[in-house]
Amino acid sequence: MVMFEVWAPGHQRVELVLDGQRRLAMAARERGWWRLDVPAAPGDRYQFSLDGGPARPDPRSAWQPDGVDGPSVVVDHGSFDWTDQGWHGTALSGAMIYELHVGTFSPEGTFDGAISGLAHLVELGVNAIELLPVAEASGRRGWGYDGADLWAPHHAYGGPDGLKRLVDACHAQGAAVMLDVVYNHLGPAGNYLSEYGPYFTDDYRTPWGSAVNMDGKGSYGVRDFVISNALMWLRDYHLDGLRLDAVHAIYDESALHLLEELSGAVAGLAEEVGRELWVIAESDRNDPRLCRPRESHGYGLSASWDDDFHHALHTVLTGENSGYYVDFGRVAQLAKAFTDAYVYDGEFSEFRQRRHGRPAEDLSGACFVCCLQNHDQVGNRAFGERTAALVGPDLLKVGAALVLLSPFVPMLFQGEEWGASTPFLYFTDHQDTELGAAVREGRRREHPMPAGAGVPDPQALETFLRSKLDWSELGREPHRSLLEWHRRLIALRRSEPDLSSHDRKLVGTAFDEQARWLVVNRGRFSIAANLADERQALPLDSGASVVMASKEGVGVETSGGEARAWLPPRSVAVLAH
Amino acid sequence: MVMFEVWAPGHQRVELVLDGQRRLAMAARERGWWRLDVPAAPGDRYQFSLDGGPARPDPRSAWQPDGVDGPSVVVDHGSFDWTDQGWHGTALSGAMIYELHVGTFSPEGTFDGAISGLAHLVELGVNAIELLPVAEASGRRGWGYDGADLWAPHHAYGGPDGLKRLVDACHAQGAAVMLDVVYNHLGPAGNYLSEYGPYFTDDYRTPWGSAVNMDGKGSYGVRDFVISNALMWLRDYHLDGLRLDAVHAIYDESALHLLEELSGAVAGLAEEVGRELWVIAESDRNDPRLCRPRESHGYGLSASWDDDFHHALHTVLTGENSGYYVDFGRVAQLAKAFTDAYVYDGEFSEFRQRRHGRPAEDLSGACFVCCLQNHDQVGNRAFGERTAALVGPDLLKVGAALVLLSPFVPMLFQGEEWGASTPFLYFTDHQDTELGAAVREGRRREHPMPAGAGVPDPQALETFLRSKLDWSELGREPHRSLLEWHRRLIALRRSEPDLSSHDRKLVGTAFDEQARWLVVNRGRFSIAANLADERQALPLDSGASVVMASKEGVGVETSGGEARAWLPPRSVAVLAH
Repeated sequence: MVMFEVWAPGHQRVELVLDGQRRLAMAARERGWWRLDVPAAPGDRYQFSLDGGPARPDPRSAWQPDGVDGPSVVVDHGSFDWTDQGWHGTALSGAMIYELHVGTFSPEGTFDGAISGLAHLVELGVNAIELLPVAEASGRRGWGYDGADLWAPHHAYGGPDGLKRLVDACHAQGAAVMLDVVYNHLGPAGNYLSEYGPYFTDDYRTPWGSAVNMDGKGSYGVRDFVISNALMWLRDYHLDGLRLDAVHAIYDESALHLLEELSGAVAGLAEEVGRELWVIAESDRNDPRLCRPRESHGYGLSASWDDDFHHALHTVLTGENSGYYVDFGRVAQLAKAFTDAYVYDGEFSEFRQRRHGRPAEDLSGACFVCCLQNHDQVGNRAFGERTAALVGPDLLKVGAALVLLSPFVPMLFQGEEWGASTPFLYFTDHQDTELGAAVREGRRREHPMPAGAGVPDPQALETFLRSKLDWSELGREPHRSLLEWHRRLIALRRSEPDLSSHDRKLVGTAFDEQARWLVVNRGRFSIAANLADERQALPLDSGASVVMASKEGVGVETSGGEARAWLPPRSVAVLAH
Repeated sequence: MVMFEVWAPGHQRVELVLDGQRRLAMAARERGWWRLDVPAAPGDRYQFSLDGGPARPDPRSAWQPDGVDGPSVVVDHGSFDWTDQGWHGTALSGAMIYELHVGTFSPEGTFDGAISGLAHLVELGVNAIELLPVAEASGRRGWGYDGADLWAPHHAYGGPDGLKRLVDACHAQGAAVMLDVVYNHLGPAGNYLSEYGPYFTDDYRTPWGSAVNMDGKGSYGVRDFVISNALMWLRDYHLDGLRLDAVHAIYDESALHLLEELSGAVAGLAEEVGRELWVIAESDRNDPRLCRPRESHGYGLSASWDDDFHHALHTVLTGENSGYYVDFGRVAQLAKAFTDAYVYDGEFSEFRQRRHGRPAEDLSGACFVCCLQNHDQVGNRAFGERTAALVGPDLLKVGAALVLLSPFVPMLFQGEEWGASTPFLYFTDHQDTELGAAVREGRRREHPMPAGAGVPDPQALETFLRSKLDWSELGREPHRSLLEWHRRLIALRRSEPDLSSHDRKLVGTAFDEQARWLVVNRGRFSIAANLADERQALPLDSGASVVMASKEGVGVETSGGEARAWLPPRSVAVLAH
């Protein structure tokens, strides 16, 4: 017997459609729920029909082997042969995150393909993998942010069992697995939710269409959908955490914000399973409320991405100043990011034409995920250039040291560790021709180019293929040295409590805007970065010895009680006092 | 010299128009501000012209003697002859609020007219008057929620000096004055703000049109407009507090919510002037964050209206169950309102089809304003019936006792104290014919009536006139007795610390849903209410004596260690243990 359940309020009749043929009336339960217990088995195909309408996939389908428009398949989560009984999780405070896109990480572009890259990651020092969204979406390739079946791992990646094999393998090698989930909107194609119930609302406007109804009529069912989905991933797939996409587009004006309810539910599950479960938000609000504990009237999330850290570092390294980078570019801002996490914590933003953010001094450094690159910052560029392509290996090493030795939770984007030369482009595979054309056109409008320099066509297979990592680079310079540089930095962070600490009170900075240098002090260590094109001396608090340096020729001199470090152009050194 | 200033970002040219003729170029300052110092004097008429366009009123006009479309007038707030130097404010925890609509309170319908009613209010025990909005709006009469010039007291009420005279007179008689201000939307007529700058946004939807732009591009100027407006009323008009209309429709997703910023600014001013300044919200969120202190990450408002208390009491007295009253009607809910303030603190609401609210156990009872009647609950009825007309004087007395002896801040609506027989109808005076017709039609649709029972025409003068209080009733029964009943209850509350206390831990209740009675225990007092149509005995914790009773024939008997009070049908008694 299988218990089929579906929330479909406001309908007069709901039928279960088995194998595309047998229609069985379901029984109405409380508050829009329908239920039917019938003989069925894992692997059986089913759909629902509302008020006699066409057969539609289950909103909570665990498997869509034929894509978003095909039937759902019964899955028994209890039948997988897990081997991770000895897995006890990872503390976020000790996490080294690696953002991974299943389709482009391995040549195969599947969950199983990703398993073959795990040894490389573990050797690098990564202990937490963050998967870009894997929910079933239209087509065979894409970033994953247009999922339509939020409960079903994409069939092109290997479906439910494939994801379980990947998680099991990660746990076997000591790596936690986090999943990027999108609760702020749904993909336009294959999305039948609005036929089922009031999943969407026009009360708020999002950049991607209708907002998800978190606080209007019927929101009780939508919130249950979202929170149950979060718990499902963590429980049925043994995941260690979730990364919530763009929570600033999750609108909820009710007294209990969805994010707070969700974090509370996850905390309950964490207690039950006896290990840490993370909920990490992407947010452009610079709002410390997100990560403040629920007891202090916060939303109780584990951490949030620190965009300001990225922007400050990226602009100082690249000199770029278009778009939202107009608000950044000063070494002083990068220094502020190290001490205050947010650069904009109430200041006026020219880009936003308003004040932005507020101070987060009560939050631990472990509440901020920092990076030099991520899928968005690379992939939203017209040509998907990574930082290596923009600044070369010297400054890439400087950036890596600042990220990997920061008082925050560091994150790498796949291939960053060896300065991969492959781009990460924006690619889609919308099956609807009109939608595909609209996305193509939108991309062109977003990145107007001089004639002959057209932005890659997101719908082209080629664009996807070009974005796959080229693992053969690993045997060549400068990739081999860059990988070694990243590996040593991660090892140093892990071996030195002063460098893995998230105590923000122990962070100090010194910098010179004109001379373009920055020194970050963390306990007995200093990270000294010379961003200029000339060799120069950076003042130190006291004499020190060189622990690591990105270039040869770093020297420390002490005279008349003053200590300073001489650094070659575009170099960084870690010094111990 | 007068310094003229206006915020008009995105314009190339802004001119000051003096006396409808002289156009003087203003100088562009930072962030969209324009300024000009010219010889002018109080009483001079002026406008602004944007990019050579038509002359428009100043968005911050202090006086619009010719209405919303006319010129603005220079006002010198420093020239009024205040006599309230001895006024030191009122503590909200001791406040007895009286909601007053200037146009219908007195025969004259003006600020000066209201002064003549003050002696009556003071004798009743009122020490805080809350004025419905007075901002200049289209036409000569209306509730005030469609203000267009938010800085200008309505010319029909007597303009700036009239309001100052009223406040001065209130202070002289020991009454604080609060003003209802509307920051969630603006009236449609005479509203030129969108010509000046990005005051509105389509990111959110309100029931009354465009939302005010509190967090989008340019919101820095809009927030300054709102917060400066709040401070202006408190400073220039010596007001003691503000009542913020429908704050649930003030959308702000930025890290520092407008309400928190506003309450902080008002707290700063309170420190400066050395007396309490209140910010009281109308909100339908049941969200304790509003009144939680800013130090505890709340918005720091003084109090909010407790709709649940009203609905619970109203439905128990009247038996009404249409619209949002469907969620209420049980004596148990009224009892819960007394102990928990919110009836819905996470429960599922049938009317809202979602969970609603959250517990507010950390808030003092002084954070909740409770009432049996207010302008909305009376005036939004098709025929504007007051509670007296619905339930008669017996149950009105029961309701009055429950409100006036509640552990919250009690509020009366003008005329409630004598069971005024005049209705309070919805009336408008839109000068735009189409708008007037639309409002008339909207009102009819909202209240579909059987033929011959048409809802009063809001645009008709008659509808306004019928809503004016009939002070001659005061000399007649049952009005005279009702007034006396209210006066005695207020005096009792004030004289007994147990009854004026807002300590919610000292509140206990007992009730019987079927028998329809409720006992509220407050320290050594019990308020025993028999809502049934039969005489019955209500159990008491211990023997007690009758302090006040709404009817004769209340008796307390003690036998076998059990105490109980016999109450006549539809009566209330205050007992002291």
